[in-house]
Amino acid sequence: MDKQQIEKLLEGVRARKMSVARAVKQLRHMPYEDLGFAKIDHHRSLRQGFAEVVYAKGKTPQQVVAITRGLLGARTTHNVLITRANEGIFRAVRRLSRDAEFHPLSGTIAIRGNRDIVGKGTILVAAAGTSDIAVAEEAVVTAEVMGNRVESVYDVGVAGLHRLLHHREKLAEARVIVCVAGMEGALPSVVAGLVAVPVVAVPTSVGYGASFGGLAALLAMLNSCASNVSVVNIDNGFGAGYVASTINRL
Amino acid sequence: MDKQQIEKLLEGVRARKMSVARAVKQLRHMPYEDLGFAKIDHHRSLRQGFAEVVYAKGKTPQQVVAITRGLLGARTTHNVLITRANEGIFRAVRRLSRDAEFHPLSGTIAIRGNRDIVGKGTILVAAAGTSDIAVAEEAVVTAEVMGNRVESVYDVGVAGLHRLLHHREKLAEARVIVCVAGMEGALPSVVAGLVAVPVVAVPTSVGYGASFGGLAALLAMLNSCASNVSVVNIDNGFGAGYVASTINRL
Amino acid sequence: MDKQQIEKLLEGVRARKMSVARAVKQLRHMPYEDLGFAKIDHHRSLRQGFAEVVYAKGKTPQQVVAITRGLLGARTTHNVLITRANEGIFRAVRRLSRDAEFHPLSGTIAIRGNRDIVGKGTILVAAAGTSDIAVAEEAVVTAEVMGNRVESVYDVGVAGLHRLLHHREKLAEARVIVCVAGMEGALPSVVAGLVAVPVVAVPTSVGYGASFGGLAALLAMLNSCASNVSVVNIDNGFGAGYVASTINRL
Amino acid sequence: MDKQQIEKLLEGVRARKMSVARAVKQLRHMPYEDLGFAKIDHHRSLRQGFAEVVYAKGKTPQQVVAITRGLLGARTTHNVLITRANEGIFRAVRRLSRDAEFHPLSGTIAIRGNRDIVGKGTILVAAAGTSDIAVAEEAVVTAEVMGNRVESVYDVGVAGLHRLLHHREKLAEARVIVCVAGMEGALPSVVAGLVAVPVVAVPTSVGYGASFGGLAALLAMLNSCASNVSVVNIDNGFGAGYVASTINRL
Amino acid sequence: MDKQQIEKLLEGVRARKMSVARAVKQLRHMPYEDLGFAKIDHHRSLRQGFAEVVYAKGKTPQQVVAITRGLLGARTTHNVLITRANEGIFRAVRRLSRDAEFHPLSGTIAIRGNRDIVGKGTILVAAAGTSDIAVAEEAVVTAEVMGNRVESVYDVGVAGLHRLLHHREKLAEARVIVCVAGMEGALPSVVAGLVAVPVVAVPTSVGYGASFGGLAALLAMLNSCASNVSVVNIDNGFGAGYVASTINRL
Amino acid sequence: MDKQQIEKLLEGVRARKMSVARAVKQLRHMPYEDLGFAKIDHHRSLRQGFAEVVYAKGKTPQQVVAITRGLLGARTTHNVLITRANEGIFRAVRRLSRDAEFHPLSGTIAIRGNRDIVGKGTILVAAAGTSDIAVAEEAVVTAEVMGNRVESVYDVGVAGLHRLLHHREKLAEARVIVCVAGMEGALPSVVAGLVAVPVVAVPTSVGYGASFGGLAALLAMLNSCASNVSVVNIDNGFGAGYVASTINRL
Amino acid sequence: MDKQQIEKLLEGVRARKMSVARAVKQLRHMPYEDLGFAKIDHHRSLRQGFAEVVYAKGKTPQQVVAITRGLLGARTTHNVLITRANEGIFRAVRRLSRDAEFHPLSGTIAIRGNRDIVGKGTILVAAAGTSDIAVAEEAVVTAEVMGNRVESVYDVGVAGLHRLLHHREKLAEARVIVCVAGMEGALPSVVAGLVAVPVVAVPTSVGYGASFGGLAALLAMLNSCASNVSVVNIDNGFGAGYVASTINRL
Amino acid sequence: MDKQQIEKLLEGVRARKMSVARAVKQLRHMPYEDLGFAKIDHHRSLRQGFAEVVYAKGKTPQQVVAITRGLLGARTTHNVLITRANEGIFRAVRRLSRDAEFHPLSGTIAIRGNRDIVGKGTILVAAAGTSDIAVAEEAVVTAEVMGNRVESVYDVGVAGLHRLLHHREKLAEARVIVCVAGMEGALPSVVAGLVAVPVVAVPTSVGYGASFGGLAALLAMLNSCASNVSVVNIDNGFGAGYVASTINRL
Repeated sequence: MDKQQIEKLLEGVRARKMSVARAVKQLRHMPYEDLGFAKIDHHRSLRQGFAEVVYAKGKTPQQVVAITRGLLGARTTHNVLITRANEGIFRAVRRLSRDAEFHPLSGTIAIRGNRDIVGKGTILVAAAGTSDIAVAEEAVVTAEVMGNRVESVYDVGVAGLHRLLHHREKLAEARVIVCVAGMEGALPSVVAGLVAVPVVAVPTSVGYGASFGGLAALLAMLNSCASNVSVVNIDNGFGAGYVASTINRL
Repeated sequence: MDKQQIEKLLEGVRARKMSVARAVKQLRHMPYEDLGFAKIDHHRSLRQGFAEVVYAKGKTPQQVVAITRGLLGARTTHNVLITRANEGIFRAVRRLSRDAEFHPLSGTIAIRGNRDIVGKGTILVAAAGTSDIAVAEEAVVTAEVMGNRVESVYDVGVAGLHRLLHHREKLAEARVIVCVAGMEGALPSVVAGLVAVPVVAVPTSVGYGASFGGLAALLAMLNSCASNVSVVNIDNGFGAGYVASTINRL
Repeated sequence: MDKQQIEKLLEGVRARKMSVARAVKQLRHMPYEDLGFAKIDHHRSLRQGFAEVVYAKGKTPQQVVAITRGLLGARTTHNVLITRANEGIFRAVRRLSRDAEFHPLSGTIAIRGNRDIVGKGTILVAAAGTSDIAVAEEAVVTAEVMGNRVESVYDVGVAGLHRLLHHREKLAEARVIVCVAGMEGALPSVVAGLVAVPVVAVPTSVGYGASFGGLAALLAMLNSCASNVSVVNIDNGFGAGYVASTINRL
Repeated sequence: MDKQQIEKLLEGVRARKMSVARAVKQLRHMPYEDLGFAKIDHHRSLRQGFAEVVYAKGKTPQQVVAITRGLLGARTTHNVLITRANEGIFRAVRRLSRDAEFHPLSGTIAIRGNRDIVGKGTILVAAAGTSDIAVAEEAVVTAEVMGNRVESVYDVGVAGLHRLLHHREKLAEARVIVCVAGMEGALPSVVAGLVAVPVVAVPTSVGYGASFGGLAALLAMLNSCASNVSVVNIDNGFGAGYVASTINRL
Repeated sequence: MDKQQIEKLLEGVRARKMSVARAVKQLRHMPYEDLGFAKIDHHRSLRQGFAEVVYAKGKTPQQVVAITRGLLGARTTHNVLITRANEGIFRAVRRLSRDAEFHPLSGTIAIRGNRDIVGKGTILVAAAGTSDIAVAEEAVVTAEVMGNRVESVYDVGVAGLHRLLHHREKLAEARVIVCVAGMEGALPSVVAGLVAVPVVAVPTSVGYGASFGGLAALLAMLNSCASNVSVVNIDNGFGAGYVASTINRL
Repeated sequence: MDKQQIEKLLEGVRARKMSVARAVKQLRHMPYEDLGFAKIDHHRSLRQGFAEVVYAKGKTPQQVVAITRGLLGARTTHNVLITRANEGIFRAVRRLSRDAEFHPLSGTIAIRGNRDIVGKGTILVAAAGTSDIAVAEEAVVTAEVMGNRVESVYDVGVAGLHRLLHHREKLAEARVIVCVAGMEGALPSVVAGLVAVPVVAVPTSVGYGASFGGLAALLAMLNSCASNVSVVNIDNGFGAGYVASTINRL
Repeated sequence: MDKQQIEKLLEGVRARKMSVARAVKQLRHMPYEDLGFAKIDHHRSLRQGFAEVVYAKGKTPQQVVAITRGLLGARTTHNVLITRANEGIFRAVRRLSRDAEFHPLSGTIAIRGNRDIVGKGTILVAAAGTSDIAVAEEAVVTAEVMGNRVESVYDVGVAGLHRLLHHREKLAEARVIVCVAGMEGALPSVVAGLVAVPVVAVPTSVGYGASFGGLAALLAMLNSCASNVSVVNIDNGFGAGYVASTINRL
Repeated sequence: MDKQQIEKLLEGVRARKMSVARAVKQLRHMPYEDLGFAKIDHHRSLRQGFAEVVYAKGKTPQQVVAITRGLLGARTTHNVLITRANEGIFRAVRRLSRDAEFHPLSGTIAIRGNRDIVGKGTILVAAAGTSDIAVAEEAVVTAEVMGNRVESVYDVGVAGLHRLLHHREKLAEARVIVCVAGMEGALPSVVAGLVAVPVVAVPTSVGYGASFGGLAALLAMLNSCASNVSVVNIDNGFGAGYVASTINRL
């Protein structure tokens, strides 16, 4: 219930078209309506080019299609992002919308009805190893669907510094940097020491043995000796792309 | 803003004593006022004989006294429970209220302005070892301050079943049972198998080596093969007494 | 050996129909017979509409059917609950009893010979995300088979508070609440802050990376800053439904 | 060695003012000089009003004073931040600079030679419990010393939502939010669901038992179901204030 | 035996004061020969009816057969125990030896050329739940192949004490007890409190969620409040049967 | 209620000196009396020279004295073992009994009213490092007080095999071996490979860093590739001595 | 860009064959070129007989072939090592190079264009159990491809010391020793106590239950009481072979 | 040497075909004598300038002095290293030997009777932060006492790459490198990528929160993407210096 609706209700009471009792009843529903988070979410998402997100893992193609149809149905200009999807889901979604694009590296489907750029600068996504690219690409696609210019540099692990330093200019030009690394997870510390902008670190489950499914990289990143680093969950490329987008829109 | 206040406002609008604009402004503040959790909390606590609780650890005697004075100041019939306190804090609180009682075993201070019994049955607090008594007593005092009849049986660890079975009648008569145990944390499983009522299990940090500060007991209780067991945090006698009280008041 | 049997034996001794030696021998077997937990269990379960429970995971359909037949054979009015089952097991059980119902969301089979409501109030089962529904439904079916009125609200995660607040009335009317959540496991804290009744929290293994199979949610729930929360094992919807039932029957 | 310096050197070679051998020697030092991170750091810090930071824990007052004198000596307009300090260190530093201010809640000393505001918006620091204030204040002082307007709201834990919702306007007005919470660490998820800006989450070691020194809160925050949340190390108020500052300067 | 002793011995041989046979005997006690581990092992195993053990997991039927043939080839009266085997391995081994018996519950193959009883008393194997029987049976078969009389009682979990107490006589008569339990692992504590003999506890990986693959049961058993309990690895029924056998032969 | 008491009661009934009703009432109290674990414990301990054990840690000297007086009061021939004690407790206990001996290495007090040897063979206690001696001595004193001949060999860590092999004869002669080791905890595997008797392994918290308070040694011992090893809790010298005693009495 | 190239460039400038602007441009690329890690890597690898390494896990045969072709294409005398490969990948690589050899035990493919021995001594690879051989063989092949003489001794676990001591001469002759062990991971401590050369320890994931995927062995090795032991990741035979090679080339 | 060989040898002696001296020599090669660990250790240590090491933590000054006197007494040219010592222990040791030097940063006492350099090259010890210097210095002093030339570079953490690159020449000249780092432990990966020699990594317990006492750095180092890295225990500067010494002597 927004301001206009409240005014209308009050006018109805004043004009005695509505009883006080009925108005009380409606107003008691107001806290939620007034908080109106859903609507705010909705408006924000249209206004800012934000995509609705569907986490496809554990859902059937039919379920993903149903949810996507619901999202697209009401507002066709909307962007939709489907993460952790596969070829089968893509074929099903494709029938729904010709705009659907499949990014096989990250298993992401993007429907970009709105391709406006709302981010102020460039988001750079850096990945330490080739095995981290799937997670990095999830961040890339997420940031793109949310209206950002995105650059990426891959295979720039810290045991071969020259590969990273080769990209110093890209690092220097980025407004936000997403750093993706498995194994010892050292990339964010090195990158963050080279720049003055916020670095969003994504540990990946790449590794074996004492990597413990990404725990080693996660702990390393949380203990970064560089101060401009914050961290998201293991393999959470989507989250990093999302956080970077909220920063880049500021 | 409760129902009466909303009616009054609407009557004011209808009677044109209040402009629509002003009413809108007031109503927009409503969500919080209407949710009014603080008030509800407050009323509930007076109505049900619930105590306000002060966690004294890490606070100076002066701070505890200040908070307690605030709680008592407004409503003198109120019960106050101060957990993780010590002799020094008690002396300071004692000057504030002659009703303050110190329970040295559990380090708990109780001010019971209201000694009404609101619990329907008896809460039994069982502790496996003598070292678990501090935590058990915190549960006992909490449940008492919240208006319950409380019984306790201590040193009934499972390696000497006869000690526990000796108290079968108390077990059978309880409406809720709090089970406190460190080390292997097996007491709740055995007790819960003997009764049909809810058992609230409290792991304690009693033990050494692979007890890992109560982790062993906590995991054991979470994996209880008895189905009528739920668990609170390690050493959280207060929480167990509180949960048991909410159950016993039903 | 119950009271009647003991009287009979003593009469036999008094009437010298039985030697003292033989009576001593029989009485030495008494502790177990006297404790007679199995019978008590049995009576309790008939009297209170409690179901016998079969954990199907790791059992063949044949084994589940055999156990179920045993349970039903003796006492046909009995309720039986089979958890962690599947379509194949259901088909086999169905041949045994036409009353068998399969709840595919939770993989639960319920045979409800007795549909009496023995719970005093309503049990509300709240789940944070759509992926938590399987566990939530296990709690729902368990509580129903044990003779409770059950309501449920799903997809009310704390990152969209309005969805939860929309159901304030259901929260307010419940006598016991089961809160199911994976990921950060924050739902029980928020719900428990809104109500005065006991909240049984169920962490789920929903999530990835640093959720560590539900550990994150489990630890969060054990550390809830709301005092009326107790916790069961990860994914243990059955346990939560069972605990809630023991509370609701009080 | 920047472009101008290289040109000058080459002109010297061309003009035969400098031998090839000497030029080779100078150029071989170039990679480091050219990367020149130290200088960049240095310039950045003067230009952007960034403070140099001294981590005082484990250092003697004399050591802290010596480092601070070095930092202040070269460039008197500079800001210096000393974290994890105490009264004794403050007295020693105070003799060095009259500008030194001690923030006892967080154990932080700030010397603000430059009080320019370089942050574009307001940073809001929210803390769940009163025990989290020390960490929150470290974030506040850090962000202030780095040239930001900072607001704070404390004691807004999720088990009493009204306390948080009371501050909806502050939440809505912030450009970046730092969320500090111990125990179950649920505050960032709830806050992030109410806003569209980046939320930097700080788990604290507040709690006992299964909080495992802040691990419970850390895992909860990493698993937040809100997408605009990133996380720093346990009790790392400084890091959160720093990250928020790098974001707010964009 | 140092240089001087060896010289003295050799001088004795040279001077014919000592026979070669006696010198050999003394020299055979020299550390290495005396250690003579392989031979001692070998003799011990023939003399004591001990079986050689093959851990079949991860080996092909061909490999298992080859090893078994080697073991049987040299000494046909020998017992062989093959653990973690399956039907396919059994069929292959069966062709080698008609004496081979397959124990499908535990996946164990026993070839008992020697069925002498060398254990002094009875080993009792108790298992808490039906799902623990596979591990329990591995202990049973191991102890039998090693020449012990073995009894077993299953499904005597602590949440139904009467089931355990029903077997008091078996408990009282055992010379060594093996206790197998998953979930909360409480059985060894209860059993050990009822007897005065050594109890070997075997945690199993039976359970889910916070059982963490048997960790909960393992920690519980290590923290047993009964003093006559020692523990072997998770699911290590073989090890428990072996330890119990070494005890029972004393 | 023992056999004599039951006979007497039945004779009373037969002689009509006692009504059936009263006999029923008394017999209904029988389960516990008949189980009579306490008495059995008591008799066993007198008969077998077993000591009662007091865990002194966390108890005042007064409390320890009071408990000890109780134990000694009733039956003066009894042995008492007080673990985790100190000089102060010893002085207090010494006043109670001139027989009290303090073993400062292990912090153990022994009162040996009965010095009969009930163990059949020798228990050998082996410790890997000098820092493990405190725990080893606790095992030694426990086993001695429980009536065993005990030998010990210390500083026989596996990185200097010759030190261990020097004691081959002691290893060969032991009926039970207790192996105490911190750090990598390898001693039990090596020792158990040299003997055919049961080895009780005790991990100690000796070490630093990744020893994690004894966890490294504990896990190593649980995973021993020698089959005749079972394990007790970290630093639990008492438990190992107790288990070894129960074995040695067989 | 090495010294010669810089001199040539400067001579060109001096001789006015090259403009200052063009020289600046080339020199600005120098930091990276001068650091020139890639080239150094490249030269080193040719000069020292080092192999390029491809981690095949998670790559398709096509991808592995493409990378291998790239490596071989430029410099045909080069050695290539492909780890974690399988039969299918081998068949694909085999078509590329007739020199490719498949080591099925370790799943390693080696292409040895250069079979020069560059290691100064012999590397000994010792494995505790037969299940550790896969990891051990990875170390063997790695060290061979890197130009070392390699010996191996398998199945020398510490519970049968004689098997290890049988190989004393090989131990004594090795210049570097790689020790591979799962379960309790005790082998490196025992071996390192017998030699004075560096021992590289490799924990393996061999084991079950409380081996926790190799964690037990890893912790044991990190806590070795022998000082000449350092450790690589769980199952990292390649890393151990590589470290041993870098040592052996010194 | 088996029975036949011994007989043959003895027959040879008896028949005077073999001299006693030669027989003794052959017999001394018999496994145990040949193993002769203590003596070999002893000789090695004199011959190679190796120090005996005393771990002072948990020992009284008197105990340390007694052990040191024993070590020095027999062989005065010997080097002794005392780790984890303090000023008080130093004063006591100093009275024993004027050569004793105290290194307060690392708490190490060195008595260097023999200052010969036996290492072939230079050992470089690099430390990431100033707080890591204590551990680094332990490595430095250890390596020096063991006869090596040692260089050190401190405060070269990866978040300020220029500090590390400034020391490229030292890195290039080292024969072995010890890398000491706490927090995210990234230094070894970066350093190892710059050199071709073995890198011994030492995690330190420097850090807070999710560093978990050095676990984060330990895991990072074990997962290093550089292949020439091996790892020792947390804070084990001694071990790293020792391993580096064994390598440098090759």
